Amino acid sequence: MVKVLRVDMTGQKVTEEELDGKFEKLGGRGLTSMLVAKEVDPLCHPLGPNNKLVFAPGMVTGTAAPSSGRIAVGGKSPLTGGIKESNAGTPFSQSLARSGYKAVIVEGMPEKDGLWCLEINKDGANLKDVSNLKGKSTGDTVKSLRKSYDNYDISIIGPTGESKMASAGICFNDPEYRASRYSGRGGLGAVMGSKKLKAIVVEKKISKVVPKNEDLFKIGQKKFVESLRNHGVTKPGGTLNSYGTAALINVLSQAGGLPVRNFSEGVFKGADKTSGETIAEEVKKRGGKGMMGHSCSPGCVIQCSNVWPKKDGTEHVSCLEYESDWSLGANLEVDDLDEIAEMIDICNEIGIDTIEAGVTLGVAMEAGLAKFGDGQGAINLLKEIEKNTALGRILGNGASFTGKAYGVVRVPTVKKQGMPAYEPRAVKGIGTTYITSTMGADHTAGYTIAPEILSVGGESDPLSTKDKIELSKDFQVTTAFIDSTGYCLFTTFALLDDSSGMEGMLETINGMLNTEYSIDDVGKLGEEIMKVEREFNEKAGITKYHDRPPEFMRYEKLPPHNNTFDIPDDELDKVWG
Amino acid sequence: MVKVLRVDMTGQKVTEEELDGKFEKLGGRGLTSMLVAKEVDPLCHPLGPNNKLVFAPGMVTGTAAPSSGRIAVGGKSPLTGGIKESNAGTPFSQSLARSGYKAVIVEGMPEKDGLWCLEINKDGANLKDVSNLKGKSTGDTVKSLRKSYDNYDISIIGPTGESKMASAGICFNDPEYRASRYSGRGGLGAVMGSKKLKAIVVEKKISKVVPKNEDLFKIGQKKFVESLRNHGVTKPGGTLNSYGTAALINVLSQAGGLPVRNFSEGVFKGADKTSGETIAEEVKKRGGKGMMGHSCSPGCVIQCSNVWPKKDGTEHVSCLEYESDWSLGANLEVDDLDEIAEMIDICNEIGIDTIEAGVTLGVAMEAGLAKFGDGQGAINLLKEIEKNTALGRILGNGASFTGKAYGVVRVPTVKKQGMPAYEPRAVKGIGTTYITSTMGADHTAGYTIAPEILSVGGESDPLSTKDKIELSKDFQVTTAFIDSTGYCLFTTFALLDDSSGMEGMLETINGMLNTEYSIDDVGKLGEEIMKVEREFNEKAGITKYHDRPPEFMRYEKLPPHNNTFDIPDDELDKVWG
Repeated sequence: MVKVLRVDMTGQKVTEEELDGKFEKLGGRGLTSMLVAKEVDPLCHPLGPNNKLVFAPGMVTGTAAPSSGRIAVGGKSPLTGGIKESNAGTPFSQSLARSGYKAVIVEGMPEKDGLWCLEINKDGANLKDVSNLKGKSTGDTVKSLRKSYDNYDISIIGPTGESKMASAGICFNDPEYRASRYSGRGGLGAVMGSKKLKAIVVEKKISKVVPKNEDLFKIGQKKFVESLRNHGVTKPGGTLNSYGTAALINVLSQAGGLPVRNFSEGVFKGADKTSGETIAEEVKKRGGKGMMGHSCSPGCVIQCSNVWPKKDGTEHVSCLEYESDWSLGANLEVDDLDEIAEMIDICNEIGIDTIEAGVTLGVAMEAGLAKFGDGQGAINLLKEIEKNTALGRILGNGASFTGKAYGVVRVPTVKKQGMPAYEPRAVKGIGTTYITSTMGADHTAGYTIAPEILSVGGESDPLSTKDKIELSKDFQVTTAFIDSTGYCLFTTFALLDDSSGMEGMLETINGMLNTEYSIDDVGKLGEEIMKVEREFNEKAGITKYHDRPPEFMRYEKLPPHNNTFDIPDDELDKVWG
Repeated sequence: MVKVLRVDMTGQKVTEEELDGKFEKLGGRGLTSMLVAKEVDPLCHPLGPNNKLVFAPGMVTGTAAPSSGRIAVGGKSPLTGGIKESNAGTPFSQSLARSGYKAVIVEGMPEKDGLWCLEINKDGANLKDVSNLKGKSTGDTVKSLRKSYDNYDISIIGPTGESKMASAGICFNDPEYRASRYSGRGGLGAVMGSKKLKAIVVEKKISKVVPKNEDLFKIGQKKFVESLRNHGVTKPGGTLNSYGTAALINVLSQAGGLPVRNFSEGVFKGADKTSGETIAEEVKKRGGKGMMGHSCSPGCVIQCSNVWPKKDGTEHVSCLEYESDWSLGANLEVDDLDEIAEMIDICNEIGIDTIEAGVTLGVAMEAGLAKFGDGQGAINLLKEIEKNTALGRILGNGASFTGKAYGVVRVPTVKKQGMPAYEPRAVKGIGTTYITSTMGADHTAGYTIAPEILSVGGESDPLSTKDKIELSKDFQVTTAFIDSTGYCLFTTFALLDDSSGMEGMLETINGMLNTEYSIDDVGKLGEEIMKVEREFNEKAGITKYHDRPPEFMRYEKLPPHNNTFDIPDDELDKVWG
């Protein structure tokens, strides 16, 4: 019997139940999306009593499989109005997997005031009153919870989640208990806040996660680890490990595809000053030991995370990765890493998605609330969110909302979610992914940057419209599968270039679940998941007419290539048509 | 040849052109919707360069037909994201009809800063710089314009339109040049503001509007006038003329269908204090001569408007009608007519829709921004809009927006437009209209209140779900026709009960246009118009899943009848299915 935990916040009851048999081979996104589609009315108010929040570790999470510490969180998104899965790498995922629960389903809504913590340990699962944590930052919350829950991993929301802002994420601890790992996108922190659930704590190592076929699992694991250790991008001392994900800043700027000044240019003059290379150099110079090549969760081979130090070498924030570096840097024309780090720190502490925050500030600058390039002005705007002022509530509800508040036309969102760090007009496959994903604009939904920019998994001219429909679809369905396994998406850099790695990955899954997935099944299962997500969205009122770029990208040419987004609507319809 | 005026704000050019032949028998909503559907990309940003704003008087406007001074304004709504037609009664409509133009189409967007006024007179049409009017209230704007345009009628936006708030309406003068008549709903004032068009002025009586068959027209006109003069609701000294539309306050409260405290109760304790009867009595007592039975435009038989006097008998505001009285009164639990009048005055002066404003304040009170019943608190919130603060921008963008800003679940909107003064759970036909209209929640889109509450045009139990689909559809298609004629919707009270009135109405149309419309054609033409509107909406991403009540009305029971809105989704789909 596969168990799930159901948390009824209305009745304050926690019960264990058997997972529907047809879902028991799923994990991560596959499981959250299937459960949300089954149990949540697509027309419910995302912050009302009928939305649900589902936490699910991946298929192999909790085992020794490499880089497999992802947790998926699903629900109806207050940001997009559609189905949402947002995943994070954190030891919490591994501990939840080892608790024996394939998923935690949080539902209902307490009528009384208060805040609760779901505690999961060897003795069972209970809701505890944590009203004392009201309004506390994520850092303070983790500190406070660790007094009672030393040997636990932790999932929490910040004050923005409590006050139900649509850019609030769900925060998890990293291996050193920093409140720094985020299921950031889509506002699921607000859903958790609407249910007055401030935290979930899970005791470590409650039990072991045992593959059904340990031999096969181990064979696969070995092949997969080897593959990761051999690929230039993922290996120890490779690109991601040495420079972090921000290694992409220079690459994208050189390609003319790094969105600058609220998506009005593709090259950033400050790229060098904010690049991964500069980060690595500066971390070294400031003497931050162990601050590069940091991992989000135990057992990661890639170790792409980092910790940014202050000038005196003491810790400032983790992590300064590509998306945050860009959203709060290039996108605002801010080229000072310490200012960017300060902004990331504020976002982490108040509990909001750094991508949405940066895209929002870009729109706010367009509206004249601060000047492009003014890092301190941007910091001050984030502090408005912290103070929960009216302006803060505008900004905390995201880029699309802020654009509407101020009548801004250049708003880089799809399905109301802010676009990540790749310009659709200069990298058209990723643009197609943003536009046609079930999740709103999301690079991780189908990361065609691999062939378009990195020559990984083939090559595809980023400026060309050719074959982008098929490319994006392939990546999207594969990703839906990967997001279900618990493996980090970055493992696919190795998988795409090395069939033995792919074989190994599948063997770990088959060993784990006693399945017989072939490479073809990856696409099939992925497509099944996306079909269910699309059906949910359709019933939530999201149609093919929402699979469209923001209008300005159709008529504004992006320098330096002076391209519009020119894949026609009827082509976009073919992704799922 | 039927002429229209095209105003290109990008190129600052005004040109006269021939109207597409297939539209030349249309007017009002029929014409604005057909032109918007033909010329506007449903996916365009409503505040971007590709939206258009269309002004069109009705089919018979400008003639001596009774109560026919309505002007329709159409475009893509920044509030709903769908097609919008919003009409008002004003001499402006009659003067525009007499200018010889069937419609004015405003398109494009100036790149440079500034504000313009479109001047239409005997010598032609031109754009004039009126940058000096920047930020001016509607009252001051009319005053200022009248210095140069004494013998003109005037259409303007207030400061909220200039700053592109989604509840900004388009304001017109009344016969005494008060800035008080509004195409309020759907944020078309923001579209006008995005185009930097502050005003349109039209010289009076440029030419005559001559029916093609004057004899037939006159026969019809006589019958129609007689019918209006005989019906209890519409006749001189009848309900509307004596008490204004606010005569409905007591009626709806007694029926348990007057939304109170942000749609959480159906009976208002303060109904008597804010009723039409009390208004009439108080106006008389304060000595306001000619302040009841006021007309919005010359030639009206019904004369339902009023002017509310201050305690000293001097003028406070026009007009204190049912919807505003309710939205800023009962809906906020405010029962002081002077406070309500003050709020209406602020809305009129800053240029926002009083319905949207009141529904927004209800949601804001739910969010804790002021207390229910606190009239001064509500006034202060409206002043935030006037001051264009961050809070003001939230409120100025409407009820749905405000609900999102503060994470409120009880938000009484459909397609993001605030619900008018009838509770869907207690009056289910009008609820069906709110839900399935192309316009978002709109009582004027299919006013089933006639049979449900007023026993006009038959009787239908308001609490019953029976036959509400057919009832609402019939009213909606008939209304689409009436909205095209230029006739005030209130004329239908007489038409519904008197076949001779209906005959007369059709004869005026047929006399005017040389058509042969029968009573059956009314429905057919109305259905055609709505089909085009629905197609536009579909392409804008508005589906049957948007033809739904707000979720809370499905599970919260409304006192005193303790009903939910219980017409099932698949029944709602049958309205247009």
